[in-house]
Amino acid sequence: MGAALALAERGRGRTAPNPNVGCVIVKPASAQAGDRVVGRGWTQPGGRPHAEAMALEQAGDAARGSTAYVTLEPCAHMSPRGPACSTLLAEAGVERVVVALGDPDPRTDGSGIERLRAAGITVDVGIRAEDARRSMAGFLARQSFGRPHVTLKLATSLDGCIARADGESRWITGEAARAHAHLERARHDAILVGRGTFDADGPRLDVRLAGLENRSPRRILLSGSAREPDGWTVIDAPGRIGDLDAVDYLMVEGGAQTAAAFLRADLVDRLLLYRAPILIAAGMPALGDIGLDRIADAHGRWRGIDSRVLGSDRLDAYERIRD
Amino acid sequence: MGAALALAERGRGRTAPNPNVGCVIVKPASAQAGDRVVGRGWTQPGGRPHAEAMALEQAGDAARGSTAYVTLEPCAHMSPRGPACSTLLAEAGVERVVVALGDPDPRTDGSGIERLRAAGITVDVGIRAEDARRSMAGFLARQSFGRPHVTLKLATSLDGCIARADGESRWITGEAARAHAHLERARHDAILVGRGTFDADGPRLDVRLAGLENRSPRRILLSGSAREPDGWTVIDAPGRIGDLDAVDYLMVEGGAQTAAAFLRADLVDRLLLYRAPILIAAGMPALGDIGLDRIADAHGRWRGIDSRVLGSDRLDAYERIRD
Ligand SMILES: NC(=O)c1ccc[n+]([C@@H]2O[C@H](COP(=O)([O-])OP(=O)(O)OC[C@H]3O[C@@H](n4cnc5c(N)ncnc54)[C@H](OP(=O)(O)O)[C@@H]3O)[C@@H](O)[C@H]2O)c1
Ligand SMILES: NC(=O)c1ccc[n+]([C@@H]2O[C@H](COP(=O)([O-])OP(=O)(O)OC[C@H]3O[C@@H](n4cnc5c(N)ncnc54)[C@H](OP(=O)(O)O)[C@@H]3O)[C@@H](O)[C@H]2O)c1
Repeated sequence: MGAALALAERGRGRTAPNPNVGCVIVKPASAQAGDRVVGRGWTQPGGRPHAEAMALEQAGDAARGSTAYVTLEPCAHMSPRGPACSTLLAEAGVERVVVALGDPDPRTDGSGIERLRAAGITVDVGIRAEDARRSMAGFLARQSFGRPHVTLKLATSLDGCIARADGESRWITGEAARAHAHLERARHDAILVGRGTFDADGPRLDVRLAGLENRSPRRILLSGSAREPDGWTVIDAPGRIGDLDAVDYLMVEGGAQTAAAFLRADLVDRLLLYRAPILIAAGMPALGDIGLDRIADAHGRWRGIDSRVLGSDRLDAYERIRD
Repeated sequence: MGAALALAERGRGRTAPNPNVGCVIVKPASAQAGDRVVGRGWTQPGGRPHAEAMALEQAGDAARGSTAYVTLEPCAHMSPRGPACSTLLAEAGVERVVVALGDPDPRTDGSGIERLRAAGITVDVGIRAEDARRSMAGFLARQSFGRPHVTLKLATSLDGCIARADGESRWITGEAARAHAHLERARHDAILVGRGTFDADGPRLDVRLAGLENRSPRRILLSGSAREPDGWTVIDAPGRIGDLDAVDYLMVEGGAQTAAAFLRADLVDRLLLYRAPILIAAGMPALGDIGLDRIADAHGRWRGIDSRVLGSDRLDAYERIRD
């Protein structure tokens, strides 16, 4: 399942409105050989083929008697773009299917699993469900909240400034952190900035990493004014992100007012904090007012999920606790 | 040497103006037994007995033929409070002495090692010198700069605030982080705050940890006014810290102006950043103006030396790069 989850990441930011799923097909040990992987698949750009279809195609006849590991319940619905994955798995003679997470899509929602079981396949559900939830956070946010999963990215000094008081912000973080931030861009369907940042920095928001140039996400501008720059989509309130077509992963890159507007609306699901080992002091704060009434109210909202060194900088990732 | 360095920590904040040294005496393997530790010592409160004297006392006759690991070059000077440690080691019949760091004190500065060698003892120098330098940072700052080693402690939200805009700051960090900060207090000879923090919070600055209550450090107030509260020592500029008697480790606990004053004077050697997983936004910044002209000038000054989880908070420690 770990391998299937890793494959699922390949589709992140490119499969909306379909979930980014990963699948690994393993032929169990026989007299002739040990366990071996005979097929690997992940949801392809645009959402098709599905991960299972790709992995089965690779496996060919070797799928007979195999175990398939899938990060999401195989679909149960035919589509003009291909047959249901639960049908494909049954027809290929797969003996066991291990599923990380049930599919909340009303067109599947348990019927994929039923269909597999009806075909005599052993099905286990819930293996690494938490990791699968994170891996398909965009699809799940769309299902639960009718809007994309939102990551807020901030690059700050140790004392939490995103620029000097006069606006100078080049460079706070080093090359490794900036490269990582570009990689994160490639994992999102769209990037959003506020009009202030657009006017000040004219950001390109593209992915400047060799081999990933074509992974640059769509550019969204938050602004009360309708003036729409070439190549940008304007929305006039954070709450409008649900209207963006085929955007399941959205990254908000600033500035302070925009970040605060998303936080105030409780639309941020994940924080990416890149922190450089410098002190700016009396600089530009990362966030405008979010309307916090008491320190106590700020607790219990964020859970650390990653912390890593990037050159001389550090990346800390947090996710919004919702329960 | 790792064990000797750990013992050295026991004296930190209590041995000024003497260095906090650690010593372990090991009897090499014989036909009867493997290597075994026969003596452990660390500089005692007030600076005497020295680590070596304590360890030799424990070892007794077992010191004959042993190896002594010491974090600092044994002293070469007699004192009314006891004989030189190099003499004691030779008289006890120690065969080999492993030293982490030479003693820059002009009264020793190599002559301790010479004396040991003259007595026929094998001496190795430089083992874990970097760790020893950190472990005796207070003594070394006094030798090199004529002032204590200064730690600046900040407890902030993820966005770098130390309070809400109206001053509310209870509580940002959780219990584990606060307990750790109290432990750090116990490792300092004195704690300093600015008059603003004194007036706002009336801080006690004591060590509220069971068993360590008597380790509460001296309390220093930074203020242009001579008004000296009971139990406090007032200094009227950061540059005056060199005048404080028997203070080799000083912790600055805020507020923003005071922290900035120490940073502006380049008197901060170590940063302790306790960070809670909360967002305050538009709150009170951790630092007042430090006079930074360009972002580029802020780089290359701080090196991460520790990062750890404390409950739901994180502690990041940095040291000033001076070379
Ligand atoms: N170092 C870094 O990581 C970093 C990253 C990003 C930005 N920055 C810096 O941050 C500065 C800009 O930040 P900023 O806070 O001034 O501006 P900003 O957040 O980028 O943009 C503010 C504008 O966004 C629009 N907006 C904000 N909230 C809105 C809402 N709820 N509904 C509709 N529109 C909304 C408004 O545009 P209209 O006025 O058009 O309605 C507002 O004027 C720049 O100096 C930039 O360099 C630094
Ligand atoms: N959450 C936290 O971690 C934390 C920690 C500490 C403080 N705080 C908060 O911070 C606030 C106080 O911060 P603050 O920045 O206003 O005050 P502050 O730094 O505590 O004190 C300012 C005062 O310190 C003296 N001072 C500063 N620099 C000096 C210099 N170079 N030479 C001589 N004296 C100097 C001056 O005293 P005189 O005017 O007497 O000359 C000045 O008025 C309080 O609200 C407190 O609760 C929060």
